[in-house]
Amino acid sequence: MINIAIMGHGVVGSGVVEVLTHNSESIERRAADKIYIKHILDLREFPESPLCDRFTKDFNDILNDDSVKIVVETMGGINPAYNFVKSCLLAGKSVVTSNKELVATHGQELLTIAKENNLNFLFEASVGGGIPIIRPMIQCLAANEISEITGILNGTTNFIMTKMIRDNTDFSDALSLAQKLGYAERDPSADIEGHDACRKICILASLAFGKHVYPNQVYTDGITKITLSDVKYAEKWGGVIKLLGRVKMLENGKINVTVYPAFVPNDSQLSLVDDVFNAIMINGDATGEVMFYGRGAGKLPTASAVVADVIDCVKHVKARKYLYWADTEEDYVVDHLDTKAELFIRIKTDNYDGDCEKISEQFGEVRFLSDVGDEIAFITKEGVERDLLNSLDKTGLNAESVIHILY
Amino acid sequence: MINIAIMGHGVVGSGVVEVLTHNSESIERRAADKIYIKHILDLREFPESPLCDRFTKDFNDILNDDSVKIVVETMGGINPAYNFVKSCLLAGKSVVTSNKELVATHGQELLTIAKENNLNFLFEASVGGGIPIIRPMIQCLAANEISEITGILNGTTNFIMTKMIRDNTDFSDALSLAQKLGYAERDPSADIEGHDACRKICILASLAFGKHVYPNQVYTDGITKITLSDVKYAEKWGGVIKLLGRVKMLENGKINVTVYPAFVPNDSQLSLVDDVFNAIMINGDATGEVMFYGRGAGKLPTASAVVADVIDCVKHVKARKYLYWADTEEDYVVDHLDTKAELFIRIKTDNYDGDCEKISEQFGEVRFLSDVGDEIAFITKEGVERDLLNSLDKTGLNAESVIHILY
Repeated sequence: MINIAIMGHGVVGSGVVEVLTHNSESIERRAADKIYIKHILDLREFPESPLCDRFTKDFNDILNDDSVKIVVETMGGINPAYNFVKSCLLAGKSVVTSNKELVATHGQELLTIAKENNLNFLFEASVGGGIPIIRPMIQCLAANEISEITGILNGTTNFIMTKMIRDNTDFSDALSLAQKLGYAERDPSADIEGHDACRKICILASLAFGKHVYPNQVYTDGITKITLSDVKYAEKWGGVIKLLGRVKMLENGKINVTVYPAFVPNDSQLSLVDDVFNAIMINGDATGEVMFYGRGAGKLPTASAVVADVIDCVKHVKARKYLYWADTEEDYVVDHLDTKAELFIRIKTDNYDGDCEKISEQFGEVRFLSDVGDEIAFITKEGVERDLLNSLDKTGLNAESVIHILY
Repeated sequence: MINIAIMGHGVVGSGVVEVLTHNSESIERRAADKIYIKHILDLREFPESPLCDRFTKDFNDILNDDSVKIVVETMGGINPAYNFVKSCLLAGKSVVTSNKELVATHGQELLTIAKENNLNFLFEASVGGGIPIIRPMIQCLAANEISEITGILNGTTNFIMTKMIRDNTDFSDALSLAQKLGYAERDPSADIEGHDACRKICILASLAFGKHVYPNQVYTDGITKITLSDVKYAEKWGGVIKLLGRVKMLENGKINVTVYPAFVPNDSQLSLVDDVFNAIMINGDATGEVMFYGRGAGKLPTASAVVADVIDCVKHVKARKYLYWADTEEDYVVDHLDTKAELFIRIKTDNYDGDCEKISEQFGEVRFLSDVGDEIAFITKEGVERDLLNSLDKTGLNAESVIHILY
């Protein structure tokens, strides 16, 4: 029997208890050992829980219990999760976490401590909720050189975009609906500003290419400025707008990492990823394109990913899993403005033909999506993004929207 | 350094050599050891190969070489692969194979021998080519009770169906094109009759539910009878026809396993899986729907999956991976005719209204897809499949097509 402790009894933490209890028989079979929840750390009271005798408000009850070999962290946020997790690792306990902010910000340090102490530090649930992605990426793609990862990594924003696309609901109404349904927090900024997707692409990029990518290295743009007009032009172009986290390996060994909304063509698998679903597309030199799809959030999907990591810890309690990346390097992440792009640009106008001419003068050949009226919408040719934005500047026109094309 | 041997230097086997050679640096880093190809077994001569000095025509050179700890089998077919693999396992060598026929037919026996000798017997490449599917299913879904697996498991038939759907090419022309492009064998029956998909769903069902499912227990129907007329009715209905391998856990603990073409609605992710791509959709009680998508065949994708297994063997050379299933049980697989279904039925007629009346008499309410003419096409309501076919019988009409609806 293996004793574990769970820190945080919120949505994910209580889901972990539920999955461990409900599927205990098959879990025991797969782990080849019994898993016993010895402590649950939470400042709140849960008198109704069948495990109410296991609750504690004191982290030291877990830290100082040598019989606890695996600690699950589902508190979220950096404080106090970071100190707690670090202390557990230093005390010789393996840690499983669903906390993407923690891994994106301190992953390299925590992995190093885990490695030095021959412990596991696993975080499958931090990206893609219940979609198995980190383990398949590491293990099954071990024989591949990965060149690119593109993901729909945030269920809340994908739900909002789906409402805008399918039901013609504008952004703020779609956001309200997401909040009403419990898909978005009262303060939705981490989702709609792209920070959540940013943390996830940082984790994937760090894993895929072996060097830590920190959130502040990543150009991040959310979906708050997307209008129904943009959505309609995307449809006319032959696609949909999705918030994408992307990382590409460049020829010079540096990487381009971005989070932004983009036009995705209808023949891409990513275009059919709707509502709160997530999907991660990986390009490898041997496998070609591989995609993983499923619910990116939610109590039970996320909890099941945590439990899968716990099972893996139990099976490898004496042998660390190979999960590690080095720290970042200077200039490892390039400025996305120096990389190639294609852009959708929408401009208000009171001189349609004249302004179209200015655009053609600066951009050369472009594809106009608009009909004569008070708005010009067009797709640029491929070019270095900085040059494209310079061309826009030189037209003297004020863009209402500038959106990337999946490229 | 770990010595390995490769049996079979055909498409996949030569791909394994290529991946191991080309990505040797990153593979060594991930395996934490150097992998050395000591023997390659093939009856043919490969004087141009840079490894030409490693070739042998004598299996005993591998079997009797105690320094070889891992053997890769990429010969295909049952004979002599079965005897070779069994001998290797009995001689204490772990085995990695891409041979779905071997695993579907003898998997239980070979897994048992591997278990008894504390060896690895891995076969990620046997299903879904380069798509990581077996390992994610086992490990990441460890905390789930799987209820259903539905897959597009054969690239050749999916290519043919895509040509029929997108380009209005009829079956035999699409097959010829597939052969011309090297996607279909000269004798294409294993693909187009559904046997290849059957072997793969057998492997997935065995893994998911813990008891071996043999190909002869599975109702298997191919795509040879699908016409362009069926394809058009599917479009009218709002979907596409795909060859699906499926397994469902029933309430009585038995399973329903089938391989047949089916109408797939356009809002299903599976409908966008085109050309030679494969996809496997798994339903778990905690994760909900999860899908894996990618190239289901091809030299390098398949080879990369084999190499990932080899890396896993190297990392676990002294500790067996938990991969095992028991033998089948009597009546474990139910007769699909006793399970619920919805059917598309197409009938030639010279009395449209009269025959429609007969159909309504027997089936009650149905959804007609045809307009008045020499053909009646309709979708039945949900019912036990045997009852639906009995109703068809009682109409006295001869069906040209009976196709399942994804249900």
